[in-house]
Amino acid sequence: MKKIIQIGIVGYGNIGRAVEASVERNPDMSLAGIFTRRDPSTIKPSAASTKILHVDDAKKFVDDIDVTILCGGSATDLPEQGPYFASIFNTVDSYDTHAKIPEYFEAVNTAAQKAGKTAVISTGWDPGIFSLMRVLEESILPDGKGYTFWGPGVSQGHSDAIRRIGGVIDARQYTIPIEAAVNQVRAGEQPEFTTREKHLRDCYVVAAKDTDKKRITSEIKNMPDYFADYDTQVSFISKQEMDGKHTKMPHGGFVIRTGTTGGNDRHVVEFGLKLESNPGFTGSILTAYARAVYRLSQEGITGAKTVFDIAPVYLSLKSGADLRKTRL
Amino acid sequence: MKKIIQIGIVGYGNIGRAVEASVERNPDMSLAGIFTRRDPSTIKPSAASTKILHVDDAKKFVDDIDVTILCGGSATDLPEQGPYFASIFNTVDSYDTHAKIPEYFEAVNTAAQKAGKTAVISTGWDPGIFSLMRVLEESILPDGKGYTFWGPGVSQGHSDAIRRIGGVIDARQYTIPIEAAVNQVRAGEQPEFTTREKHLRDCYVVAAKDTDKKRITSEIKNMPDYFADYDTQVSFISKQEMDGKHTKMPHGGFVIRTGTTGGNDRHVVEFGLKLESNPGFTGSILTAYARAVYRLSQEGITGAKTVFDIAPVYLSLKSGADLRKTRL
Repeated sequence: MKKIIQIGIVGYGNIGRAVEASVERNPDMSLAGIFTRRDPSTIKPSAASTKILHVDDAKKFVDDIDVTILCGGSATDLPEQGPYFASIFNTVDSYDTHAKIPEYFEAVNTAAQKAGKTAVISTGWDPGIFSLMRVLEESILPDGKGYTFWGPGVSQGHSDAIRRIGGVIDARQYTIPIEAAVNQVRAGEQPEFTTREKHLRDCYVVAAKDTDKKRITSEIKNMPDYFADYDTQVSFISKQEMDGKHTKMPHGGFVIRTGTTGGNDRHVVEFGLKLESNPGFTGSILTAYARAVYRLSQEGITGAKTVFDIAPVYLSLKSGADLRKTRL
Repeated sequence: MKKIIQIGIVGYGNIGRAVEASVERNPDMSLAGIFTRRDPSTIKPSAASTKILHVDDAKKFVDDIDVTILCGGSATDLPEQGPYFASIFNTVDSYDTHAKIPEYFEAVNTAAQKAGKTAVISTGWDPGIFSLMRVLEESILPDGKGYTFWGPGVSQGHSDAIRRIGGVIDARQYTIPIEAAVNQVRAGEQPEFTTREKHLRDCYVVAAKDTDKKRITSEIKNMPDYFADYDTQVSFISKQEMDGKHTKMPHGGFVIRTGTTGGNDRHVVEFGLKLESNPGFTGSILTAYARAVYRLSQEGITGAKTVFDIAPVYLSLKSGADLRKTRL
């Protein structure tokens, strides 16, 4: 297949490296370069021939890149980079600060519209494919109730929150869906859950020598927003055990809806993910949406879009006719 | 909510009745009438006020109906009704003769294009949502392998095939996915299965008095295409037991894909359905796609479409802005 879609990666952290690996797995794409804010000479891409570019030079590559995939974080990188890159390139990003998505959408949409570019914001698995499933499930089964469970998996945000506690050297927090709750939903019941009833928080902490572990445990368990509303387990482990057993970033979860149709027949619709690498899978999804962005752009459809606006055919390597013949 | 979408139902069998019930569950729709080939006076709709119309009068209602949902069968009804109704109305149907879909698509597309109408063909759960999941899963996880398992559930086609055997009064065939195979896939392996290894066929038969049951069993188990390639169980039951225990039409299944991303991290993506009523859920999906057809038509997008061409926002009761705020 001719490699027609030239991809630029912006930011070379976990997600950036995952996108780099995913581009190799998509025969219609090739990697045009990686943009970084660091000194380009410090970046070691997986293929030595990959061009490393400075973000300040982005505009010079407007003719060489079809879609840039923005791999920065939502806290500080994307609010700035999202609108900026959408004013130069077609873009895809994984902006995930749920409360600020409408505001971010407007900023990226304005920039993209003005520049005649196309941008898919907030994709990945949640926000992203899980969001798509919530909407699909409630649309095809309107008389019902939907649930999202996350995990088992590492939450970066919760791990970071523990690391900010005095005397903590390292920490890893696993979000674990409570099986009894999941099974109750799968059985077609429509329970109302408290926060505590849906997920458990399981924390592994490396403490500095001679630190009061009871204080750390108490600070974790009582931390508002992050832990106070949950049943939280805290285990203290050695640095060695942390580095040996807790380096992977698994994640996953379920989007389940139960509901009824005429005659009160009950139905359960469930979408689930079991991921060995959260950034690996996120990067793979971002790459698929880059194909959609490229095609929309070719059709002259501009502005900011989300997973809700993208028809499945735009994501596929196959043509509409081929999909009808082989996948319908 | 203002009931803006006027729905017409064509054909009042299991699916037609399910669509009738689903329209009631969607606050933006109302039922404009039911078309039948039978004597309209013989149809008893769930609401006595529903208009029963003869299919021959369809053209008279072109201004009263936004979308007709075609609820006939794929063998003889839809090949004729699909193109015919698409030349008068926007349409949705569940055409499911997989091998003939490209041909059917062309016929409906030609009719719809010519009339400036919009038609979604071959929707429901398979073909339909399962097809969508096959394409979504392979797009976001290209380096992998996909599987579809069906059941546990009643297969009409296989039940009918048994009923055509001499001496059989009634029959019900359950398609059962083989759990060991499903679990092997869920574990992230990528096995190659024979037909026999994926599904079991479990048959319940009411035989005429003094019929040779061994002959019936042999005829079922050796029937090409339907049973010969499967492990098939045959149980003879009384008419009373059939009518008491086997009247429901449950179904379901799984679309599972396993694959890897960079570093050979393994992922499992799974979509599953557990349905108490196959026609009930199919009708609910057809109704959601009627909303999409209406909106596409309002935007001037005409011709035949499939689930692959429909962005999720078109299926939802909510606006794009509302979805971004509450579902992303």
